[in-house]
Amino acid sequence: MRKVTGWAAHTPHTPGEGAALAPWRFERREPGERDVVVRIRYCGVCATDLSAVRHGEADGLPLVPGHEIVGEISAVGAAVERFAVGDRVAVGNIVDSCRTCAACRAGRENWCHEGVTLTYGGVDRVDGSRTQGGFSSEYVVDERFTYPLPGGLDPAGVAPLMCAGITTYVPLRRWGAGPGRTVGVVGMGGLGHIALKLAHAMGAETVQFTTSPDKAAEARRLGADDVVLSTDEARMSAQQGRCDLILDTVGAPHALEPYLSALAIDGTLCVVGIPEEDLRLSPFSLIVGAKNLAGAGSGGTGETQEMLDFCAEHGITAETEVVPADAVNTSLDRLARNDVRYRFVLDLGAGD
Amino acid sequence: MRKVTGWAAHTPHTPGEGAALAPWRFERREPGERDVVVRIRYCGVCATDLSAVRHGEADGLPLVPGHEIVGEISAVGAAVERFAVGDRVAVGNIVDSCRTCAACRAGRENWCHEGVTLTYGGVDRVDGSRTQGGFSSEYVVDERFTYPLPGGLDPAGVAPLMCAGITTYVPLRRWGAGPGRTVGVVGMGGLGHIALKLAHAMGAETVQFTTSPDKAAEARRLGADDVVLSTDEARMSAQQGRCDLILDTVGAPHALEPYLSALAIDGTLCVVGIPEEDLRLSPFSLIVGAKNLAGAGSGGTGETQEMLDFCAEHGITAETEVVPADAVNTSLDRLARNDVRYRFVLDLGAGD
Repeated sequence: MRKVTGWAAHTPHTPGEGAALAPWRFERREPGERDVVVRIRYCGVCATDLSAVRHGEADGLPLVPGHEIVGEISAVGAAVERFAVGDRVAVGNIVDSCRTCAACRAGRENWCHEGVTLTYGGVDRVDGSRTQGGFSSEYVVDERFTYPLPGGLDPAGVAPLMCAGITTYVPLRRWGAGPGRTVGVVGMGGLGHIALKLAHAMGAETVQFTTSPDKAAEARRLGADDVVLSTDEARMSAQQGRCDLILDTVGAPHALEPYLSALAIDGTLCVVGIPEEDLRLSPFSLIVGAKNLAGAGSGGTGETQEMLDFCAEHGITAETEVVPADAVNTSLDRLARNDVRYRFVLDLGAGD
Repeated sequence: MRKVTGWAAHTPHTPGEGAALAPWRFERREPGERDVVVRIRYCGVCATDLSAVRHGEADGLPLVPGHEIVGEISAVGAAVERFAVGDRVAVGNIVDSCRTCAACRAGRENWCHEGVTLTYGGVDRVDGSRTQGGFSSEYVVDERFTYPLPGGLDPAGVAPLMCAGITTYVPLRRWGAGPGRTVGVVGMGGLGHIALKLAHAMGAETVQFTTSPDKAAEARRLGADDVVLSTDEARMSAQQGRCDLILDTVGAPHALEPYLSALAIDGTLCVVGIPEEDLRLSPFSLIVGAKNLAGAGSGGTGETQEMLDFCAEHGITAETEVVPADAVNTSLDRLARNDVRYRFVLDLGAGD
């Protein structure tokens, strides 16, 4: 077993108190034939990490969050074909799957019929241990779920692409974001700001919906052709029928109808991120105009490579606040208050 | 003005009591240049009629329901091009629209930006009167919203195609029902039984979901390749990931999750008919598997003609119980109890 250091939740979260990850020494399995060992340089701080720390089960502790990983390969198994020691790579929120079901064979491992192995909080398919995430010094992972770091992009800004990027890229592609189409983005956090950049780069007309008037200039800088303050009822009414696709990246409870109303005929409102409550809507908001409420989450290896290639071609990375690893608790607390523009990335130090 | 006889609700419905339509003499406008006068022979009895009678506003009375109309042309305006006296025709739930918006220009008048004129309960765009429906002796309608009765089909069985048929045909086409695809149908009433016939004729593998064990043999006769009792939890669990598309035709409140679970990756659950309550669902039921909850309702003139052509080619009509017009109240009451296989059609007597 390999000795690793990381930042872990050790006790159940106390509501009302801040995050409390503490340093932890733990072990990972030795690399198998097809594994690579990644010395972790950067790891993004995702809302899912916050949720895992705050809502995780006691029997899942200790828990090391983190699934937006960028680092450098320090060792490779004998049968590894695509990577060598020293290669800079990225790893996302999926580190294994059954490999044999129809979804896996199609490169859409995120919907593996037997369930994926998540980067943390999952059960390692090799040794049965609980997986621990990227807020740590190194990761051991099959090369299949490892991606070459795209050249020419800021490595810290690539890290969030591995979750926030892929989660928004897939529905944008699926629902036809591109020239002649209007794409709305609800929320301008970690997912939203990347969705905006991606939709803009795909050639769509983009509309950023936000509750923060002070984000308008920023939204335009990031690629918004228009910015709509969602608390302005008159402005919202005027959006009726405008968008072919809206990505809703807001996890906090909110009404869906105003956004369904802003869809054109046959339009799609796609829920990404993880809403905290049940979705509730009038059936008429779907029936009138033949609209769709869709879901999306992460992507498979094929889609992830395609997303990274697209971002390399268009120079897209996340807007980040890079902080030292020991600022992890402050970062989680600020993320809980939406006080980040737009993604914290921990600097784990390796690879300097 | 033209004198017409019909069956109308005259007073607000008293909850707990049956439907109470009574004969009524009223007037329709004289046909304009592009209008035809249809002597009505058959009119289907749709759940929407029941809803209009039971939940209609007092200021909308008297109200003549009925929007699944088959009859014969008895007069035509001077500029009518497509029809002559004696032609057998069908009229559905839309009798006018703005004609100029993008939806109208695309032959998708059901989503007219200014709102369609419904066959009853709408406001006539010509004379401003309230439209009254097909439970009556004749209808005056623009030829644009009039369709030639397909040859070779039982006229009474065509009537329900004008609402139940088009409402299910459009989403079946849109979401790709056809060979190599599996289509589920929830509910086996007026809409459901036609959806089943259509999906089968399109070449899809069909799965009928029903709460009625005694409908299994009927479902197979109508085109079901499989029948699943939706109250059988083990059977429902076994459907996981099976269907590419499910049309949900059930208006009564019911859980959507079992049907979202029965969808394959990227699958669509399409709500047709008019659910009585808000839709409520866990966001994970959409996110996991990138699923889609869609709406649909009626169709435009282009789609309606295409649907009728398809039905003519495949010999598809509704399964009907044809009853005399004075059985209208019994029919509505039985419909309220789901006691119909599968669509009541009133015989209005004209055209014999």
